[in-house]
Amino acid sequence: MNLMKSLTPAAAIIALPQMGLAQEALIGEAALHTQYIFTTLLFLMGGFLVFFMAAGFAMLEGGLVRSKNVAMQMIKNIALFSIAAIMYWLIGFNLMYPGDGWTITGWLGPFFSTTSLDPVGVAPADAALDYASIGSDFFFQLVFVAATASIVSGAVAERIKLWPFLAFVVVLTGIMYPITGSWQWGGGWLSEAGFSDFAGSTIVHSVGGWAALAGAIILGPRIGKYKDGRVHPMPGSNLALATLGTFILWLGWFGFNGGSQLAMGTVGDVSDVSRIFANTNMAAASGAVAALILTQLLYRKPDLTMVLNGALAGLVSITAEPLAPTLFGALWIGSVGGIIVVFAVPMLDKFKIDDVVGAIPVHLFAGIWGTIAVIFYGEASLITQLTGIVAYGVFTFVGAMILWTILKATVGIRVSEEDEINGLDMAELGMEAYPEFSKG
Amino acid sequence: MNLMKSLTPAAAIIALPQMGLAQEALIGEAALHTQYIFTTLLFLMGGFLVFFMAAGFAMLEGGLVRSKNVAMQMIKNIALFSIAAIMYWLIGFNLMYPGDGWTITGWLGPFFSTTSLDPVGVAPADAALDYASIGSDFFFQLVFVAATASIVSGAVAERIKLWPFLAFVVVLTGIMYPITGSWQWGGGWLSEAGFSDFAGSTIVHSVGGWAALAGAIILGPRIGKYKDGRVHPMPGSNLALATLGTFILWLGWFGFNGGSQLAMGTVGDVSDVSRIFANTNMAAASGAVAALILTQLLYRKPDLTMVLNGALAGLVSITAEPLAPTLFGALWIGSVGGIIVVFAVPMLDKFKIDDVVGAIPVHLFAGIWGTIAVIFYGEASLITQLTGIVAYGVFTFVGAMILWTILKATVGIRVSEEDEINGLDMAELGMEAYPEFSKG
Amino acid sequence: MNLMKSLTPAAAIIALPQMGLAQEALIGEAALHTQYIFTTLLFLMGGFLVFFMAAGFAMLEGGLVRSKNVAMQMIKNIALFSIAAIMYWLIGFNLMYPGDGWTITGWLGPFFSTTSLDPVGVAPADAALDYASIGSDFFFQLVFVAATASIVSGAVAERIKLWPFLAFVVVLTGIMYPITGSWQWGGGWLSEAGFSDFAGSTIVHSVGGWAALAGAIILGPRIGKYKDGRVHPMPGSNLALATLGTFILWLGWFGFNGGSQLAMGTVGDVSDVSRIFANTNMAAASGAVAALILTQLLYRKPDLTMVLNGALAGLVSITAEPLAPTLFGALWIGSVGGIIVVFAVPMLDKFKIDDVVGAIPVHLFAGIWGTIAVIFYGEASLITQLTGIVAYGVFTFVGAMILWTILKATVGIRVSEEDEINGLDMAELGMEAYPEFSKG
Repeated sequence: MNLMKSLTPAAAIIALPQMGLAQEALIGEAALHTQYIFTTLLFLMGGFLVFFMAAGFAMLEGGLVRSKNVAMQMIKNIALFSIAAIMYWLIGFNLMYPGDGWTITGWLGPFFSTTSLDPVGVAPADAALDYASIGSDFFFQLVFVAATASIVSGAVAERIKLWPFLAFVVVLTGIMYPITGSWQWGGGWLSEAGFSDFAGSTIVHSVGGWAALAGAIILGPRIGKYKDGRVHPMPGSNLALATLGTFILWLGWFGFNGGSQLAMGTVGDVSDVSRIFANTNMAAASGAVAALILTQLLYRKPDLTMVLNGALAGLVSITAEPLAPTLFGALWIGSVGGIIVVFAVPMLDKFKIDDVVGAIPVHLFAGIWGTIAVIFYGEASLITQLTGIVAYGVFTFVGAMILWTILKATVGIRVSEEDEINGLDMAELGMEAYPEFSKG
Repeated sequence: MNLMKSLTPAAAIIALPQMGLAQEALIGEAALHTQYIFTTLLFLMGGFLVFFMAAGFAMLEGGLVRSKNVAMQMIKNIALFSIAAIMYWLIGFNLMYPGDGWTITGWLGPFFSTTSLDPVGVAPADAALDYASIGSDFFFQLVFVAATASIVSGAVAERIKLWPFLAFVVVLTGIMYPITGSWQWGGGWLSEAGFSDFAGSTIVHSVGGWAALAGAIILGPRIGKYKDGRVHPMPGSNLALATLGTFILWLGWFGFNGGSQLAMGTVGDVSDVSRIFANTNMAAASGAVAALILTQLLYRKPDLTMVLNGALAGLVSITAEPLAPTLFGALWIGSVGGIIVVFAVPMLDKFKIDDVVGAIPVHLFAGIWGTIAVIFYGEASLITQLTGIVAYGVFTFVGAMILWTILKATVGIRVSEEDEINGLDMAELGMEAYPEFSKG
Repeated sequence: MNLMKSLTPAAAIIALPQMGLAQEALIGEAALHTQYIFTTLLFLMGGFLVFFMAAGFAMLEGGLVRSKNVAMQMIKNIALFSIAAIMYWLIGFNLMYPGDGWTITGWLGPFFSTTSLDPVGVAPADAALDYASIGSDFFFQLVFVAATASIVSGAVAERIKLWPFLAFVVVLTGIMYPITGSWQWGGGWLSEAGFSDFAGSTIVHSVGGWAALAGAIILGPRIGKYKDGRVHPMPGSNLALATLGTFILWLGWFGFNGGSQLAMGTVGDVSDVSRIFANTNMAAASGAVAALILTQLLYRKPDLTMVLNGALAGLVSITAEPLAPTLFGALWIGSVGGIIVVFAVPMLDKFKIDDVVGAIPVHLFAGIWGTIAVIFYGEASLITQLTGIVAYGVFTFVGAMILWTILKATVGIRVSEEDEINGLDMAELGMEAYPEFSKG
């Protein structure tokens, strides 16, 4: 009996030859259906939570830019999500998961392979009963790629033109992210090499961070940011909004990491999802506390934006392995993430890389850290993890540099000096986010 | 075996005469219980997501009105939701679903029929095992009616008195919406005629839009909006908030459309919910992108508020049939919704109908479009769909005109000119939403 | 058959001796697994909803303080949540639920007992199949204790130093709340005495309220609040944000109360969760409407902040017994909560207790009311309920007074007069929440 208890119900059935065949099939079928529903539900829940991260990024970035660029940051964020949704359908999903239905024929020709959902009222015989519905899987994967694009928009804020930025998003979400994503999650070479990145510290966050770094370098810093050898802070216009954005991202991360268990239909799986929730929360908390204490020690004043970014860095850090660590493991992994951010932000300023919201420290540096931290808990070796980090870095950074450079050379990516000083909102959109509040 | 696989577990059991009766009943019972739990859970999840749309409407509207009217918009939104909750309990739910427990007796007399929930710890024998718990169903339906009322509050903002508006909400949510809702969702004549409106493009959104249109006409435009033959834009005071509201509405729409599957206990149903999530997201994305591109082409500058409303129009458009279309279908249906908004907003201005937030284009026009679009995917005929659209339109518009007129003739619905200029917040509430930010 | 129908599937199986033992065990096992997954899922969903209340408190408080103290309120809220997460792991959870794994040995010595989660991929034989995963339970309980701390931060806002406040949070979340929590939810003496507090009107909300009251008394009122025998209102700086916070709290309360059913795997349980959702919503709605009408009657102008607090008081009021009442019961319980707030806010001012956001009326007074209201629906006696109310009150208020006094006597808890006038943001953090909006 003990052995049977440790099996899933469906598996246990198969182990019971003394049952009648019809009953055996029937009960096993019912259990499989239930598992399918649970896992599909996990993707739907995880999906809407990660969807909401789009709002989180928008609020975080909208709060950290100056008020003259807030409307632009809003339009960028809603547009990038929308473009990601379309591009990932048009090509990305099947490019990333080639085994799941990629076909180079069809009316869109050899270059596109749009996503096809399960038919309406799909029969169990036609569904992936050991996994989940295509619609839920597609939705869940899609909100991940959008997160990658959101990371970029924060770093290059306050000086980039709208349309070239969106052109970059088209390529990033339709082609670049799906190609590198397929290396691991599509069953590609890194997956076979033993690389381990549970929910995407590298695959999602570092990729976004590399693309952001390339953009920030090619664009150059905002006017006046580095002048006379000094760094001139440009405080965010609405820290309440930035805090809201951080809380929304933290909320969404439960879906991000929890959903990446990719299964919720057994006792073991739902318990694992629970571990992931608890660890994810702990890493965020410890990242925030680490940044709080460290900024107090370093600057004698705690820094709210550092605390917000510390929480986010804690979240990114635990994303590569939110399951295996104990809560204490999540605590120290997240703390290191928070510490990294506090040191990395001024370091980027030393190199005159102007990352408006701190996206590069949070998503790239903490993403690398989280991917390395897997070796303490996962079964991956340091060498494999470094291979993955470097492979993603080289491909994405080089690809993004090329793409930004092409955009710069052709349509131009930076607004005019006058437009930048007046603010992108009036210059590019002809509107203001806060038209009535007079500026001090 | 293939046949069995295509049945739900519960149905399959019934097909197996060779099983012992007791076992048959037992396994079937377990499967039914599980299905009941899943569908109830769908309503609870869908319900809290749609509940949150109340916050979305509040933020959207609060961001699009001028700062002197923000506190009023906040109080209207929280009050209208609260009133809807009470009225729908007091009379609406049983009026809309007469078969589900309507009784004209009881201590409240023949005029009211309050909602009764399942008893605590309801026994399976007493529960609607083929559906869901009454509490979850009531909650899910209730948040829908609140959405209808929210639509109205945006269109008539910045000039309507608080209490007459709330009186309108009482009648709309307690009587008007439930009556028309019963035509279709209560199994009434339109349902029998074959009208098709999956989650309420017409039943919820157009109804709100018609009521809003009537209100905007009776109220007249804001002072200074149409002067000297020109339209004077009155920019929203906080576009970050408006963007947040849009994202929250988008989030809530997964519950709105997904929950309207009304079942999640089988492989087919949960897969359908997944289709709906994916399609809903695609329609929002394509509506946003369509509005983005179109405003760039028309005005040479993208318009953030149009993009926000484009996303919402995409959502409204897909609401009548979020299940049947392919993702490409959702894309083009949503795009048309976005395009409609861009053209309809200035059109309303031509008629000097002052819709502060664009609620009429988004909810009425895109709602009509979505209801018509069903004919390309659903089984409804154009004539049936038009019949429904006209029936809902005539009843709601005429009813709302009468109600607004009565309110205008008795208590008055519009604040004084002085109060409107000073802002409703100080005049009606004696407070300001942003008391410290000096106005430019 | 009727009897069987009224049993849960798992229980029914046990009642069927004629089935083969193996099949019996198998089907029962499957049903148990499914129940475990559902209840774990309830905690995960409830948990992320209650987590989001941290954002709700932050926005509510950030909207109700003056703009010069907003950044401080943000950092307090994200820090208190993070500290709660760490302290509850370090000691609180096992202190509160001693039966669930408390052990005074281990490397942290006799003073700490950190939480251990289920192992990765826990086998069903090792899981609490009749309940839920440890991770989900821990996560769900943890977000409750954070709510308690959030309540305090609002009442003592605009004058308390950051670090002493956080030191208070360390003790409150790590020791005080867990000790009193164990009296009831840990199976302690109040639980045995028959005290009834379903989701924590007393255990969570009043405890937060008592701690807040002690803090507000020890701190004293803000400079200028009570001067020349009059109360000088200090309006919140952003009522849109405060409204958003209220809606988020309302949303989170579905998880707060619904999750406290602690089971979702049977027809009866999920139907009970549904009742709780519907009742929770009704109490919030009726609290809001009561405050709306009452402020209109008393002051001839509705008061938005009272309406927001009325909704919250309705929610607190129903929290002690959200299951047993009918919807009408929820309506009148919630209404009384809303009425209490409207009268209690000026009453506190009479005593010159300066509660910046109204946390004491909402959480303490309505919490007491809700705990008493149980006697009309639950099986608890008035005397038992009063015993619990007094026990929680004495322990928490006295403990908090001692703790605040120690902090005051040692490190000091109040900022300097100059810092208070200039605002805590510049004084303690060196930054502003809205640096660009000039103050009127």
